[in-house]
Amino acid sequence: MAMAYIKALSLPTSKMAAKHDHNIAIIGSGIIGRNWTMVFASGGCNVNIFDSDENQIQSALVAVKETLEQYEKDGILKGSDSAADQIARIRGCSTVKDCVSDATFVMECVPERLHIKRSVLSQIDLYVKDDDVIMASSSSSIFPSVLSEGMQHKRQIIVTHPLNPPYFLPFVEVVPAPWTDKDITERVCQILTNVGMTPAVLKKETKGFLICRVQHAITAECFKLVRDGVVTPGDIDKLMPDGLGRRYAFLGALEASYLNANGMKDFCERYGDNIYELQQDFGPPVKLEGAPLEIIEADIGKRIPLDQIQEKRDWRDKRLAELDKFINKTKK
Amino acid sequence: MAMAYIKALSLPTSKMAAKHDHNIAIIGSGIIGRNWTMVFASGGCNVNIFDSDENQIQSALVAVKETLEQYEKDGILKGSDSAADQIARIRGCSTVKDCVSDATFVMECVPERLHIKRSVLSQIDLYVKDDDVIMASSSSSIFPSVLSEGMQHKRQIIVTHPLNPPYFLPFVEVVPAPWTDKDITERVCQILTNVGMTPAVLKKETKGFLICRVQHAITAECFKLVRDGVVTPGDIDKLMPDGLGRRYAFLGALEASYLNANGMKDFCERYGDNIYELQQDFGPPVKLEGAPLEIIEADIGKRIPLDQIQEKRDWRDKRLAELDKFINKTKK
Repeated sequence: MAMAYIKALSLPTSKMAAKHDHNIAIIGSGIIGRNWTMVFASGGCNVNIFDSDENQIQSALVAVKETLEQYEKDGILKGSDSAADQIARIRGCSTVKDCVSDATFVMECVPERLHIKRSVLSQIDLYVKDDDVIMASSSSSIFPSVLSEGMQHKRQIIVTHPLNPPYFLPFVEVVPAPWTDKDITERVCQILTNVGMTPAVLKKETKGFLICRVQHAITAECFKLVRDGVVTPGDIDKLMPDGLGRRYAFLGALEASYLNANGMKDFCERYGDNIYELQQDFGPPVKLEGAPLEIIEADIGKRIPLDQIQEKRDWRDKRLAELDKFINKTKK
Repeated sequence: MAMAYIKALSLPTSKMAAKHDHNIAIIGSGIIGRNWTMVFASGGCNVNIFDSDENQIQSALVAVKETLEQYEKDGILKGSDSAADQIARIRGCSTVKDCVSDATFVMECVPERLHIKRSVLSQIDLYVKDDDVIMASSSSSIFPSVLSEGMQHKRQIIVTHPLNPPYFLPFVEVVPAPWTDKDITERVCQILTNVGMTPAVLKKETKGFLICRVQHAITAECFKLVRDGVVTPGDIDKLMPDGLGRRYAFLGALEASYLNANGMKDFCERYGDNIYELQQDFGPPVKLEGAPLEIIEADIGKRIPLDQIQEKRDWRDKRLAELDKFINKTKK
């Protein structure tokens, strides 16, 4: 039954010429895999999906189809083609070999555990045909050098870590291993840009990459302020949506400071000493546990009860979709 | 000439009943003073403005009038009254005494230097009539206990620090001194909420308050990533507008993590160890100077030349206005 559906969906694909002439192989059909599938399909690529659990492929194909049709109804579908045309480019595959053998770009999206990722990447390593096939991992934290050690095609490895959901958040951090071909990095950025994403390249492997470093500098500081009884979680959570977050919705973190003075040098002349002192006041690293964690959980739980968390996530994604549309409309 | 204009504007005011029955005194008519004026006028308050430079009051009154009329044309005027009605509530004053004598809420907005602020606050201290008049300072960093030391009405002091521009960024951090009356804190929050702002209360005086602590945890981390050659300023500045900033436009920093797992406890169980390690990897405080600063200045300078910085600020404020309208429209 599952295979029948996979076949049915696969039929039209072979008759279509892909717009960007890219065959994408998505390995892992969870939330990130499904999102990448929709992103690449919106950009005119052919997309194969594989999952070790065959039922999971089936449900991913159904979910992707329904989601794209819903987005089309809601006016938030990406790309210039109809949902039907985009869906027709997507095919489920029952083996890694079948999924990757014609691919020019393989995207691994399996769970964030080293042994799982390495095992899947080894299989991909076996079956990719050419020395220029991109072998990307959606890992949020594992170094590409660790993922690819000992692999035959290790010069083709790269990390492309998106935010969730990538369909409405274009930023992707791109992390090559020390041995990754320059050409691979450039082509990854080009292809991601072509399908509407915004790549940013890390020139060195660095713990937490860019996203987690910035995000968790914020998380840690907020946690400390709750621990020290300075401000309630509820009041902390007003800062972004009613303040800083609105600026950051269309300004970079450095640009925002640059505009708050006459450039960054002027900004640092005015506030540099204070910011240095402030960092000293941040104190040592904090463990995210204990009483402050209980306070945060209880406080947010009043606004977002755990049994309504999925509804709030859906609300978030709907807002992100609207915001994306708004930002694209008001650009420049 | 200046005084003539001030008088002309003052006439209609006395004939109007203020909606919220609040008389606001704004001391200092720079950007923040003008913005506070517009915020309170939009909320139905009567607003007196004073500046030690009489020409400055004159130009502030003209600028506020023109700005409100422009906002009305652009459909981004706040409040339920016409621009003309709001303008009629605003009056220029030539002495601190005249400005504050009938005020229920005084907002000091003079430059961020201790001796200037203390000198102005001492004058206000002299002229406020009652023991329940709110004496607020827009200081971004000076503790209210330091501002008010030795003052007669020191139990009425409070810091109300907004983001720039407050007219389109509702967040305000409210910082009482240890000796501030509880009633003052509560009334400040109530009045700010009534005029459309979002107050967040600090329960202790803390270096950098909330805004600068979170903002500069980000600034410092971005600076270090440039210093260490990990990522270019241009790529760093993609992270917020195409990624994290979009989430933060309608989610708090803690809420965002809560939703990325099944609550904050689950989030910390999954990622807490990594976030603790990451903080250790942040290393010691960084001075915002030297080669990385040159790199940042040059990189942003290519996108925003210093001689076009005001245009970019206007663009920012226009986008903030549009975003504010969008957020209010899509709320809930």
